[in-house]
Amino acid sequence: MQKYADLLDMLKSKTPLVHQITNYVTVNDCANVTICIGASPVMSHAVEDVRDMIAIADALVLNIGTLDESQIKGMLEAGKAASKKGIPIILDPVGAGATPYRTQTAALLLKELNISIIKGNAGEIGTLAGVDALVRGVDSQKLSGDPVETVKSLALASSCVVVMSGADDIVSDGKRVAVISNGVPLMGKISGSGCMASAICGAFAAVSDFFEGCVAAMAVLGVAGELAAEKSAGPGSFKPAFLDAVYVVDSGTVLKKAKIKEY
Amino acid sequence: MQKYADLLDMLKSKTPLVHQITNYVTVNDCANVTICIGASPVMSHAVEDVRDMIAIADALVLNIGTLDESQIKGMLEAGKAASKKGIPIILDPVGAGATPYRTQTAALLLKELNISIIKGNAGEIGTLAGVDALVRGVDSQKLSGDPVETVKSLALASSCVVVMSGADDIVSDGKRVAVISNGVPLMGKISGSGCMASAICGAFAAVSDFFEGCVAAMAVLGVAGELAAEKSAGPGSFKPAFLDAVYVVDSGTVLKKAKIKEY
Amino acid sequence: MQKYADLLDMLKSKTPLVHQITNYVTVNDCANVTICIGASPVMSHAVEDVRDMIAIADALVLNIGTLDESQIKGMLEAGKAASKKGIPIILDPVGAGATPYRTQTAALLLKELNISIIKGNAGEIGTLAGVDALVRGVDSQKLSGDPVETVKSLALASSCVVVMSGADDIVSDGKRVAVISNGVPLMGKISGSGCMASAICGAFAAVSDFFEGCVAAMAVLGVAGELAAEKSAGPGSFKPAFLDAVYVVDSGTVLKKAKIKEY
Repeated sequence: MQKYADLLDMLKSKTPLVHQITNYVTVNDCANVTICIGASPVMSHAVEDVRDMIAIADALVLNIGTLDESQIKGMLEAGKAASKKGIPIILDPVGAGATPYRTQTAALLLKELNISIIKGNAGEIGTLAGVDALVRGVDSQKLSGDPVETVKSLALASSCVVVMSGADDIVSDGKRVAVISNGVPLMGKISGSGCMASAICGAFAAVSDFFEGCVAAMAVLGVAGELAAEKSAGPGSFKPAFLDAVYVVDSGTVLKKAKIKEY
Repeated sequence: MQKYADLLDMLKSKTPLVHQITNYVTVNDCANVTICIGASPVMSHAVEDVRDMIAIADALVLNIGTLDESQIKGMLEAGKAASKKGIPIILDPVGAGATPYRTQTAALLLKELNISIIKGNAGEIGTLAGVDALVRGVDSQKLSGDPVETVKSLALASSCVVVMSGADDIVSDGKRVAVISNGVPLMGKISGSGCMASAICGAFAAVSDFFEGCVAAMAVLGVAGELAAEKSAGPGSFKPAFLDAVYVVDSGTVLKKAKIKEY
Repeated sequence: MQKYADLLDMLKSKTPLVHQITNYVTVNDCANVTICIGASPVMSHAVEDVRDMIAIADALVLNIGTLDESQIKGMLEAGKAASKKGIPIILDPVGAGATPYRTQTAALLLKELNISIIKGNAGEIGTLAGVDALVRGVDSQKLSGDPVETVKSLALASSCVVVMSGADDIVSDGKRVAVISNGVPLMGKISGSGCMASAICGAFAAVSDFFEGCVAAMAVLGVAGELAAEKSAGPGSFKPAFLDAVYVVDSGTVLKKAKIKEY
């Protein structure tokens, strides 16, 4: 557990710059949670701008939540620069499985870019892993088969660290597996929990081993969710309380509260 | 009153998927209020994506608050698919009357698509109804004539249910008229009250008669506003309190608090 | 001090319409803070729409935080109409110095339009003033030389009022200089503090001398930040508390709390 707590200290000491090309629904939450964890966000999507922004960035997060053609161009341009520079790229395949356009774009980005981390819900990860998944809009309902095996198989097939968020979060690099059992149901009652997780995986990946960074990311967010739920009267008050909690959680809190099982 | 309370239970039991093509100012509020009422939001605007998203959606909300040409293309593509599938389309003509571009686009969408519900403020509804309206930016100031007659006449002319939001909300399908007297002035002090109302009209329309659904929507939001105002120190704290209230208002609260007059 | 307090009363009595073409990260915050101060926001970026919106607007705010080519076209179209009409244009050169695209676009807008006010952080203002600046993403770290001289020199060179936000805010029109020492560190821990300041400079510029308006804007926001910090547990709860505070700060509060030094 100590190593995950240490990663949070490391992140805060390095304040990595996390370049995010993301959807316009939850982009403000992503920017704020990135600040709260101790990193620095920058949003830029224009093909004219992204290459120069990558030159100063420490990680790139690609979130396809409100995809269109000009955004795909920006993602490819930024992603190629990031691959060349060797910084981690995190893909959040929002809605993969819900529509062919999203599924195909996720596949295109995986093929064209050197993606390091895929972070999605059960339906999205299941879709990319090729198992039967019932996806509805950007929510995910059901997945056939063992979720740990699904995560592992996609990690192996894609040579990525894969994070499946849910009641339990599952992280695997194909060999190692961790299950994080923190978090609260209210996290599923706000828009942006998953998007914020991808941003935070990016912040940790910038300063650590990708597998360990993702485990730390999901643990910190889950712990923050638990702290925030105690102070919330519903989803509306939960979001500011969650950002407060991400801001105050430190390595000591992680040591005390994180529930991580490694296999 | 019982029927409106029942509609809220119905909505929560069916969790309809509400596809929204909306402005980038209040889109996060729209997503969150949709979750809080018990429905599921999905935002998608690309012509490549919307047709497949409509295939799984239960209602479509078109909000022209930050309009441009590529968005109009997405709205027409999604709207035609929604018309064909027979799911309700809700139009929020933000800023109609303020600029010709917005007025003409609202008219275009009404002409090309099978719109079920028009939700606007006095200036926007007055503009579409052809009565003298003073519109300034996206706010509405004054309207000549009787607002109930204006709502009724637009409902008849457009074959839509029309919702005019304001201190009193007026809903009509051309025959039936309802006036909802819930709500608080703080709802006019946050960006997004009107946009959230359109999203919630969409959620109710997906599971009910459009007229009754809009009445229920405006009543639930008005009651939630009243509950939230008691816990707010200003517009900033009002918004999270409002989302909390939308989340906790149930059919019993509607029965006790809703002020609906039908004519 | 009285004149700055009076400007707040003036703003509230006139409720100017502030047309904003801004980034999709903090646009909701900008809309809400504009309402809270007592002005009225409208967001519109399409070339087809902006000219007619400017016809009814009292100020134009251009924020390049998430720039692309179509947005530049909208900014130029709106800016030319605003220049012709003679309403103030406020430029927030977000990320100037971080990438050539942003630096060049800021320069282009300054060249093509009759900009009245430039509002940026130390790195952005330093970049436009031509002094050595270390800019990282959209954050600014260090600036060589005396910041007051930098602000003054850019004001003279550009014939604009220049506002450099930071722990102390510096405002100059090339002759007059004011330093505002209000504010709290939490304002740097949320996304959007700077963007909101530009929006509020626009609201004040619509009703006053530009230099005095910017001084009043920065003082009101700094005082609001101080009030909000007392009620906040972190950056998440700070933002709604900040909007509440902007809403309740009146001319009396400004008189009591503002820390303005003029040179």
